[in-house]
Amino acid sequence: MDFKLHNTDDRSGARTGEITTDHGKIKTPIFMPVGTLGSVKGIHQHELKEDINAEIILGNTYHLYLRPGLDVLEQAGGLHKFNGWDRPILTDSGGFQVFSLAENRKLTEEGAMFRSHIDGSKHMFTPENVMDTQRTIGADIIMAFDECPPGTSSYEYAKNSLGLTQRWLERCVDRFDSTKGKYGYSQALFPIVQGCVYKDLRIKAAEHAASLNREGYAIGGLAVGEPTQDMYEMIEVVNQVLPENKPRYLMGVGTPINILEAISRGVDMFDCVMPTRNGRNGMIFTSEGTLNMRNQKWANDFTPLDPNGTSYVDSFYSKAYVRHLIRSNELLGGQICSIHNLAFYLWLVREAREKIDEGTFYEWKNVMVEKLGRRL
Amino acid sequence: MDFKLHNTDDRSGARTGEITTDHGKIKTPIFMPVGTLGSVKGIHQHELKEDINAEIILGNTYHLYLRPGLDVLEQAGGLHKFNGWDRPILTDSGGFQVFSLAENRKLTEEGAMFRSHIDGSKHMFTPENVMDTQRTIGADIIMAFDECPPGTSSYEYAKNSLGLTQRWLERCVDRFDSTKGKYGYSQALFPIVQGCVYKDLRIKAAEHAASLNREGYAIGGLAVGEPTQDMYEMIEVVNQVLPENKPRYLMGVGTPINILEAISRGVDMFDCVMPTRNGRNGMIFTSEGTLNMRNQKWANDFTPLDPNGTSYVDSFYSKAYVRHLIRSNELLGGQICSIHNLAFYLWLVREAREKIDEGTFYEWKNVMVEKLGRRL
Ligand SMILES: [Zn+2]
Ligand SMILES: [Zn+2]
Repeated sequence: MDFKLHNTDDRSGARTGEITTDHGKIKTPIFMPVGTLGSVKGIHQHELKEDINAEIILGNTYHLYLRPGLDVLEQAGGLHKFNGWDRPILTDSGGFQVFSLAENRKLTEEGAMFRSHIDGSKHMFTPENVMDTQRTIGADIIMAFDECPPGTSSYEYAKNSLGLTQRWLERCVDRFDSTKGKYGYSQALFPIVQGCVYKDLRIKAAEHAASLNREGYAIGGLAVGEPTQDMYEMIEVVNQVLPENKPRYLMGVGTPINILEAISRGVDMFDCVMPTRNGRNGMIFTSEGTLNMRNQKWANDFTPLDPNGTSYVDSFYSKAYVRHLIRSNELLGGQICSIHNLAFYLWLVREAREKIDEGTFYEWKNVMVEKLGRRL
Repeated sequence: MDFKLHNTDDRSGARTGEITTDHGKIKTPIFMPVGTLGSVKGIHQHELKEDINAEIILGNTYHLYLRPGLDVLEQAGGLHKFNGWDRPILTDSGGFQVFSLAENRKLTEEGAMFRSHIDGSKHMFTPENVMDTQRTIGADIIMAFDECPPGTSSYEYAKNSLGLTQRWLERCVDRFDSTKGKYGYSQALFPIVQGCVYKDLRIKAAEHAASLNREGYAIGGLAVGEPTQDMYEMIEVVNQVLPENKPRYLMGVGTPINILEAISRGVDMFDCVMPTRNGRNGMIFTSEGTLNMRNQKWANDFTPLDPNGTSYVDSFYSKAYVRHLIRSNELLGGQICSIHNLAFYLWLVREAREKIDEGTFYEWKNVMVEKLGRRL
């Protein structure tokens, strides 16, 4: 993996760049649709490419490890071959899911013991086997295995947790560096910077991660309940420490406003389930604000779903039709809103890149943040 | 609406023809995907056109009347404008749903009183207002309002029910002939031939319907629990009475085998929820038999979903991937299987047309019926 920094904004931390992987290039800042189980919910792979213009998608190690399981993925020749997505893929390490989804979790220095949320079966994740698992899944970018402390953690808890995450990170690096990709292309390992909302812990974590000299870095443990201003502050603190010439990935964030604010603080990569999850509930994001498609006000509005939208659903389907589908729990309603929202997120980062390169990002961001906050 | 009979098979009742509507032509025999609420579940309109090759779709009057309701449909300019489907549409009369889905149903000579299955609200369907409702929905082909007696009805019940259905049919015809389409294109009214599994009732019903000289005829009340051979026999009996030069629509049927057997008995039009409903459950129909995608045997089968399939999902997605999606309850699994099944049903009737025109339908049908009955 290679990263070239292109332009840096004069009046913010925003920057454009390009990541090169063996499955193709990714222009940054970029948003990555979440394909938890190897599919982005309700979306065909060709829709991701042609209608949404996704350049990279995410897979979840925890979910893929349980289903379809490593033997199937290995026999398939990795996730790209399994799901037919031939552009870059990033996998998280499963840390977040083990700490939020799995049952009977038991944490030791060695790793995390847990029971599957599906069938109660017992499993153990360690830094080493999570590296091996991500070698088998075969994503282009893989994540270190970390502890994800609750957003409300005390300083003491956060500090101890960070200690464990750092020791696990070193074990991840050792394992990763002593193994190779299984399918003939290379993979990159990103450390995850934790530390909750404590500045000194975040700085310590970022310095430790940077010292390991990896191909990119992730910021984890944000957007887990802390005030938004705290999140922005933590991003600033961490990005002051992380090297300029490596991509920075803010995990699991967020609203379109969060994304613009994080871009202006120097973040290059994003993922979030919001575009698809909110889409299935009939909430759509547009350049003029958000719309709840369940509202009575759209019942007789036969204008296009989003006249400024870039995907075919925006001009083909009307607000009244989409409202009807969503209210009637018709699958197509969620599919339409999911395609719209993902295409909107990809439009947003594309616009951001253009504005950064043109030198107008700062003004544009302020106008957009005001508009994106509206409820239509 | 106009119907031209093309070729009739020497060794069976099968025939090819062409229906012309103001929204385009339909080659028969044809299968019509069911778009209950104005969308075929999980399928985009462009997929229906481009991947599935649907020539006509169905809408359900009962469902559309309740949601989005007649005022929305009328303001939209009819269902075609509302859902963006610009090819022909057929609506059923709501009779079947009133008798299978609605609550607190009360039947009188005047019509059927019922409560909505959604919110318990009280409604009355009469032959007259069901014609008006279908004028407002604006389908190209609309159905008479009928009583749908249970499949297990006694002769006495079936006879009385048929009497009511015939009186309602005459009221439908009167109302239909004294009104016009609301959106500048013409509509055709098809009577529905009832009579349960009683030959003499079916003959009486077909003679009465034929005497009204409409543009096409439907056969209702079959595939509701009676033995399959009884269904085939009723189709034969009815089609001996119905005029040759009008299309015949067998409502709500059925499996691929049912469709071929009914084609060989002179049926021209079909609809069924089976391709989408079974698809969502991971059951796919192919030219070599049916596959249950949940089966363990597909877990490591990375060959294409259906090497003989005609839609892009058949070659793009593997059996192992689709099995994984279906077992993980991923929406995309149901979407893939629904597209596959609908494309298969449309392939089946296309093949049937070709074989009838070539004069090889009889042999082909016997080979296909044997293959379609297999479980792979
Ligand atoms: Zn998120
Ligand atoms: Zn059916």
